Amino acid sequence: MKLTGKQTWLFENDIYIEETGTVVGPKEGEGPLRHQFDRTYEDLYCEQPSWELAERQLMKEAIEVCLEKANVRKEAIDFFVAGDLLNQNVTANYVAREMGFPFLGVFGACSTVMEALLIGAMLIDGQFARRVLTATSSHYGAAERQFRFPTTLGVQKANSAAWTVTGGAAALVSKQPSPFRIRAATAGKVIDGGSDNPLNMGTAMAPAAVDTIRQHFFDLQLDERAYDLIVTGDLGKVGSIIAKQMLKEEGLEVGERYRDCGVMIYHSEQNAFAGGSGCACCAVVTYGHLFNEMKRGKVKNMLIVATGALFSPTMIKQKQTIPSIAHAVAIEAVSR
Amino acid sequence: MKLTGKQTWLFENDIYIEETGTVVGPKEGEGPLRHQFDRTYEDLYCEQPSWELAERQLMKEAIEVCLEKANVRKEAIDFFVAGDLLNQNVTANYVAREMGFPFLGVFGACSTVMEALLIGAMLIDGQFARRVLTATSSHYGAAERQFRFPTTLGVQKANSAAWTVTGGAAALVSKQPSPFRIRAATAGKVIDGGSDNPLNMGTAMAPAAVDTIRQHFFDLQLDERAYDLIVTGDLGKVGSIIAKQMLKEEGLEVGERYRDCGVMIYHSEQNAFAGGSGCACCAVVTYGHLFNEMKRGKVKNMLIVATGALFSPTMIKQKQTIPSIAHAVAIEAVSR
Repeated sequence: MKLTGKQTWLFENDIYIEETGTVVGPKEGEGPLRHQFDRTYEDLYCEQPSWELAERQLMKEAIEVCLEKANVRKEAIDFFVAGDLLNQNVTANYVAREMGFPFLGVFGACSTVMEALLIGAMLIDGQFARRVLTATSSHYGAAERQFRFPTTLGVQKANSAAWTVTGGAAALVSKQPSPFRIRAATAGKVIDGGSDNPLNMGTAMAPAAVDTIRQHFFDLQLDERAYDLIVTGDLGKVGSIIAKQMLKEEGLEVGERYRDCGVMIYHSEQNAFAGGSGCACCAVVTYGHLFNEMKRGKVKNMLIVATGALFSPTMIKQKQTIPSIAHAVAIEAVSR
Repeated sequence: MKLTGKQTWLFENDIYIEETGTVVGPKEGEGPLRHQFDRTYEDLYCEQPSWELAERQLMKEAIEVCLEKANVRKEAIDFFVAGDLLNQNVTANYVAREMGFPFLGVFGACSTVMEALLIGAMLIDGQFARRVLTATSSHYGAAERQFRFPTTLGVQKANSAAWTVTGGAAALVSKQPSPFRIRAATAGKVIDGGSDNPLNMGTAMAPAAVDTIRQHFFDLQLDERAYDLIVTGDLGKVGSIIAKQMLKEEGLEVGERYRDCGVMIYHSEQNAFAGGSGCACCAVVTYGHLFNEMKRGKVKNMLIVATGALFSPTMIKQKQTIPSIAHAVAIEAVSR
């Protein structure tokens, strides 16, 4: 049984992330991590006629870059596991159509990147596939239009609000040795801390992040020192402070080991309010910046905890609170 | 390698559907299969204040009925794999919250039932879990409001349009012997036949159903005689005729073996236009009616091909066509 404890898989085989691809938009290309991505668009439309098609372009291009870097042909992909933030998962669906891969669509809001990765790792470890491609994406304009207000209205944001990252990211999973080995993964529970403010997702997601981290350590009988880095997806400035405090109360002193992708992706002068969010946030920071840190020997192992607010405008109108989920994958650097 | 051919898994272990639960709304309760479901609501609101909450109630109750029939406690469930038709998968998300299960959210529109089931089977076969609960749901009122027009407007439907099934369904997957064994599964590709009419999903989905069926037989080197029944999810009256013709052109003479859940669920006098659709359609017909047929020895083995139109109102407004997907699971009766 690969299930260890309640929610964690310890993979039997050596599963690797063979290669990754990251493509971002203009704001991300001006941030502190600007040199960490494979490609950057200077325009939010990414040479497309709409924001939704721009997002599609970002995911498609991230896949193309990933396969190019891995020197793997499309035909060598057994399954494609992907999801995004747009209704009906349209970005992933249409990219799957264009690429022609057998497809499993997943949805975990901004936790999607790690949900796709842990299903991908499972497919390889269980001998259901030889090579699995995983991908996700988000787009500032497309997300604002769907979840909030059309940007043209110029509605003001609260300081606790996040800025949806414009980007696409892909990761190729297989048994081909690479510098990035997947050791374990913890699938999260849906946790609801009672938040009902759609302009403060960090507070809504923090309890889910903490629950998954706590469970991961408990299942594997490890403590926080097991990882150089413990990274949450997009709690942002508000949520990450709450998460750190909650982890302390659970007896986990993460201290300097703790990072949040939403905090890392923008400069504070970039007017991104509480920081980055969206499916692409955790994805481009992890597969771009953090993987580079591993390659350069600065990080030996890390736990990536992608956080998703399962927020629905319809449910908010019906006075429901915002449940959240977090999926974690443990990745270690392999020296060659 | 459990992957056989291009897209099909032949499971190594004997994987069973231990039990199922089906709960439906009033129209389904008046149809030809009315005695095949575990519970029926006489009112579309299902004793809830909104259609979205009614759908949640249906999924939750299907799970409760399933666990009750299986005599399995909630705590014995390792993972919950579910999805639905509402934006952000809200039904599944909120049910996962209430049930407290570790959760993998999936989205395949009306193909979700078999996507969840094949991932569930994989989790068991690969030793990632001991018991997996899978579920899906749809609701006529909630789907109309989201995808079409508020029903209160009384907008007329085309004869090619489908009627979203109101229902919830759950299936419990494990190695516990039961009358229903899962042998194989084929994950589909996203196929686009160029349809752009949101009032005719059957035509949009037929090519995806045919592609998955063809691939399933090709991967396993079988022909249509391998199954007593080959069942599509919700192609309806229009789509199922197209699919049958297309299968014939592929050399597959399915004849009387072929059924469609969308055609089966309503009487023609019920004004359901082309027939039933929605995530619950294939789910309640399969887990209710078809499983009863297996228990009674009338069906020895069947291939369930859940079909999903990956339809997005936003994409239609941007002049995009409607891509579709179909996931197939082969189930055989085990005599005790």
